[in-house]
Amino acid sequence: MRAVVFTGAGGNEVIDLVERPDPVPTGNDVRVRVRYAGLNPADAQQRNGIYPAPPGSPADIPGLEVSGVVEAIGESVTTWQPGDRVFGLVGGGGLADRVIVNERHLARVPDSLADADAAAVPEAYMTAHDAIRSQAGLRMGETLLVHGAAGGVGSAAVQIGLAAGARVIGVVRSESSHQAVKALGAEVVHDADFAAEVAELTGGRGADVILELVGAPHFPANLEAIAVRGRIIVVGVGAGSEVQIPLLRLMQKRIRVQGTVLRARPIEQKAEVVRAFEREVLPALASGRVRPVIDQIFPAEQVRSAFDRLEGKGKVGKVLLDFGV
Amino acid sequence: MRAVVFTGAGGNEVIDLVERPDPVPTGNDVRVRVRYAGLNPADAQQRNGIYPAPPGSPADIPGLEVSGVVEAIGESVTTWQPGDRVFGLVGGGGLADRVIVNERHLARVPDSLADADAAAVPEAYMTAHDAIRSQAGLRMGETLLVHGAAGGVGSAAVQIGLAAGARVIGVVRSESSHQAVKALGAEVVHDADFAAEVAELTGGRGADVILELVGAPHFPANLEAIAVRGRIIVVGVGAGSEVQIPLLRLMQKRIRVQGTVLRARPIEQKAEVVRAFEREVLPALASGRVRPVIDQIFPAEQVRSAFDRLEGKGKVGKVLLDFGV
Repeated sequence: MRAVVFTGAGGNEVIDLVERPDPVPTGNDVRVRVRYAGLNPADAQQRNGIYPAPPGSPADIPGLEVSGVVEAIGESVTTWQPGDRVFGLVGGGGLADRVIVNERHLARVPDSLADADAAAVPEAYMTAHDAIRSQAGLRMGETLLVHGAAGGVGSAAVQIGLAAGARVIGVVRSESSHQAVKALGAEVVHDADFAAEVAELTGGRGADVILELVGAPHFPANLEAIAVRGRIIVVGVGAGSEVQIPLLRLMQKRIRVQGTVLRARPIEQKAEVVRAFEREVLPALASGRVRPVIDQIFPAEQVRSAFDRLEGKGKVGKVLLDFGV
Repeated sequence: MRAVVFTGAGGNEVIDLVERPDPVPTGNDVRVRVRYAGLNPADAQQRNGIYPAPPGSPADIPGLEVSGVVEAIGESVTTWQPGDRVFGLVGGGGLADRVIVNERHLARVPDSLADADAAAVPEAYMTAHDAIRSQAGLRMGETLLVHGAAGGVGSAAVQIGLAAGARVIGVVRSESSHQAVKALGAEVVHDADFAAEVAELTGGRGADVILELVGAPHFPANLEAIAVRGRIIVVGVGAGSEVQIPLLRLMQKRIRVQGTVLRARPIEQKAEVVRAFEREVLPALASGRVRPVIDQIFPAEQVRSAFDRLEGKGKVGKVLLDFGV
């Protein structure tokens, strides 16, 4: 197989594309012939040497999400046959044209969805869906506030929130993001003064669920913008982690503040995430109500350029690697 | 009717016992002939003038919980008949020998439970049950850590946690509390070093649910003592409200921090609390597996002494007023 490897920790000079022996699936694992793989910030952090691959994954091959075709199956696999079109989360090793995946971590790609579009889905849509529905319990008729609404997880959350029957308000920092988030169907407020704008839009009631993808700087205003019985779900703290919280305010408004991550979960819990995604998001992807957004696709040979794009400014949607057919 | 009233804001000199016209129940309200009424810290706060009665309750009659007999019913009441033995939560006005209560805020007193024992139940047991089961979702096999475990809500939580099939660890500050909490069936740790003791007892795993009845000073150690996917439910902050929380830690352990109060909830939600209590706690009260704890009973005429006892040190269990039969 061809695989992207990190030959050490550092910048793009440690990235290489090499030949490795094809991995052989056993037990409940399948081997997927990867068509497209998505790049994620965690891949760049792994390259920098600050976010090691989880146990059980190849130590030097990054990559968290793929789309492709089942090519071979372990002796205990019951869900898939060779030839099935699949996409899903992998613990690591996804930036390769062959990858070993637990059968329960894959979902079937709807016929209406192209392979490239499918590779843009797993990490962003499963993270967003798990956070707002499974963890925060967003319901029809509620109001969802999404920070970083123009980003990968943010734009997925906006679309899933709307498909769930919620009112969605996206928080953005630039005029170009404003247009992009509005085009997804959300109302839009500006980062600088979001609590007052949310109060205005909701008649003082506030948001039932706040998806925090940015971090600590939002927190005093999050506690203003949240409704009685609201849930603040924290998925990203890139802008800072330390917050001051008055517990009395949590009591008075009966607020929940909750943190979550996907990558560290045990395999059964990841399988639950994929099943919940399959039940609730797959129908919306199949019908086109929810659409993945691709920024740019690079051939596998241009993986260094792909990382440049991943870490550059101004991208909208996912950066993908194309491993050919 | 005879009613305890506050003639102003202040100390026990503003407390009086007076005659008032019997209230007449209408709609879904019933009139309860009160046998015993429980005193709560909120009653003393109301006397001090810092915690006004909620809208719809008598402004000058304190009292949040009663046991007694249904005496008259409003024209829409379907649940109760005169003569039924009941106990429950009232928005206010409970320190009187007649009180108006929404029919859905009452539960039937088990035959095995005396009237005085019944009056010691509603506030402490409904608060504890709602917090650890309905809000925090404590399940069989999990570990519950209870701060202030010797207090009214704390000792109720210890007993309900054990009855729910959880392992219960009580946190106490004195040797006498240690014995009282141990007698309820809990393991006991000391407030000064509880995180290390919990780590020792649980093999480093931590508690799945922490019931916080004391406040901010516990918080750094709560974040140590909580297990992965744990829930910290905050019901009291008498010792301080402001806490510093690293959101990254909430993410890594996938922790929920949640505040709750009963008194401020709308009537439908209070009715839900009573129904959940009825389903889960009433059978344990009827069988004697869960037992209310009474500190002392005062005749209604000695209401000032009852408030002295409520606010004094060293009490174990509830202070009740006896309105006679």
